[in-house]
Amino acid sequence: MPPRGAFGRKVQGLGPVSVLYKRVALIGLGLIAGSMSHAMRRAGLAKEVVGTARSAATRAEAREIGLCDRIVETAAEAVQGADLVVIATPVGVMGAVAAQIAPHLAPGATLTDVGSVKRRVIDEIAPHVPPGVHFVPGHPLAGTEHSGPNSGFAELFENRWCLLIADERTDAAALSRLSRLWQGMGARTEVMDADHHDLVLAVTSHTPHLIAYTMVGVADDLGRVTDSEVIKYSAAGFRDFTRIAASDPTMWRDVFLTNREATLEILGRFTEELFALQRAIRTGDGDHLFDYFTRTRAIRRGIIEAGQDTAAPDFGRGAARKETGT
Amino acid sequence: MPPRGAFGRKVQGLGPVSVLYKRVALIGLGLIAGSMSHAMRRAGLAKEVVGTARSAATRAEAREIGLCDRIVETAAEAVQGADLVVIATPVGVMGAVAAQIAPHLAPGATLTDVGSVKRRVIDEIAPHVPPGVHFVPGHPLAGTEHSGPNSGFAELFENRWCLLIADERTDAAALSRLSRLWQGMGARTEVMDADHHDLVLAVTSHTPHLIAYTMVGVADDLGRVTDSEVIKYSAAGFRDFTRIAASDPTMWRDVFLTNREATLEILGRFTEELFALQRAIRTGDGDHLFDYFTRTRAIRRGIIEAGQDTAAPDFGRGAARKETGT
Repeated sequence: MPPRGAFGRKVQGLGPVSVLYKRVALIGLGLIAGSMSHAMRRAGLAKEVVGTARSAATRAEAREIGLCDRIVETAAEAVQGADLVVIATPVGVMGAVAAQIAPHLAPGATLTDVGSVKRRVIDEIAPHVPPGVHFVPGHPLAGTEHSGPNSGFAELFENRWCLLIADERTDAAALSRLSRLWQGMGARTEVMDADHHDLVLAVTSHTPHLIAYTMVGVADDLGRVTDSEVIKYSAAGFRDFTRIAASDPTMWRDVFLTNREATLEILGRFTEELFALQRAIRTGDGDHLFDYFTRTRAIRRGIIEAGQDTAAPDFGRGAARKETGT
Repeated sequence: MPPRGAFGRKVQGLGPVSVLYKRVALIGLGLIAGSMSHAMRRAGLAKEVVGTARSAATRAEAREIGLCDRIVETAAEAVQGADLVVIATPVGVMGAVAAQIAPHLAPGATLTDVGSVKRRVIDEIAPHVPPGVHFVPGHPLAGTEHSGPNSGFAELFENRWCLLIADERTDAAALSRLSRLWQGMGARTEVMDADHHDLVLAVTSHTPHLIAYTMVGVADDLGRVTDSEVIKYSAAGFRDFTRIAASDPTMWRDVFLTNREATLEILGRFTEELFALQRAIRTGDGDHLFDYFTRTRAIRRGIIEAGQDTAAPDFGRGAARKETGT
């Protein structure tokens, strides 16, 4: 039966899909791996899903909610006989994980990851990949501000992009099958160069996150405006920032440390622009401000038209508020 | 009948409410005035609501959707016999509006506004207020990124804060009645000093908006990352910024020009923090980043607990996406 998205919508671009992998090993059991497990099992894309995580508590929680078909104690055990291995840990430990599992990878297996930066991850993993194992790095552009084995859900990747890193040396069959897996989970896929990926993500994700973290930190720090005032009056624009700033600290620390160059470049641009706007404010240059704000409004419309966000005003929070009474 | 919020929930803190004003004049017919009209009429808080706007097109649109009981051509006409006058124009023109209407205000009327900055608005309006008219500035902390007469809705103020500016010279009865109006529309009210208001809002709203505008502007500007890539891959954090940056350019130009000092102060703090984080990234100081991000996560939790945002992950966009198929 073809995989179906929410409300039985046929997942785009896919005909009838059979099992793509006989055994998928998930190393790390957070939001992304958990959602992959739900999505693969719902769509019948893998015969068996095996999971592992570093902490016993995480493994116990995953077992409790039946997250995978099997939860095992070590990564080495998880990858035994797996034809797809997904490294879904924070990017800071991916190299160590790759070293651990390398001797145990099955010949012909595909190895992938879901890390938010690609150049550093490739530099850390690639040296450990044995001949005959196909390394196809990946990055699904999806997530929420929650973490842990309980946070995942099958719909996470629907209509989101998954970027796959490949060049002329990449095994075409391995790339194709991995692409179909992501499509089977509802995503659209695109192949990209690693360094270009890191720059694009610095713009669309990493620097915005840093900015949001900073704004929330400043608000927290300010003595004369109490925390409770910041919280009470946070509907005024600030709360949108706080969602981003509630993201997983471990993941984001690693992202900034590993996508350093691109992030610093975008940050530099950002501070230039910010100082230009600051100057316009100081000197009362209303036209500069008006023109700038008019230009940015158009980008929002572009995003809605590209189907990458809801057109419902205020992210549809009116509807959500009615349901929750907030 | 007591005013009811969404799904018949009794609006908090209110017993049976009778008509509070016999005629409310709305000057300006954008998101806020439009929502006030819907909310007041739904709850029976005013016997009659009269509206006016500067542009004929806006007045025509308002008439077409039946936004008020009457739409008139001029502000002078609108305030005739009104016991509450609401200035709901961009803050940049509030002084001119006050000068226009001053000779026509009924003795004993309450004059208020809904501007996002208070000190400048007071400085511009107060000189025109005739003796016997009670000026009680206000600011409802509510809004969406949409504009115009068609954008308002009755639920906008539910469970949001409305800040009212008053001191020992303010007429107590006028303040009390205006507070009850906002409460009747679903808001909670709080009295605040004008300068403190401007600082709090610089932190929770004005500077975050400027930051969001800047980030979107930078993304737009960057040559090597195409606009379509920015748009396609905008689910990665960036799209939250774009909603804020789609806000009305006129309103926001005026906010920054009139809340200059406080905005510049917070901007200064922001750039200090940002440079500290930038330095941590450049020098690979993972602990600094981790600690900073952990601290900001707690603020998000505070906001959800204060009922100022939905706890649904990703602003509940999963649910919205299912409905709209995005």
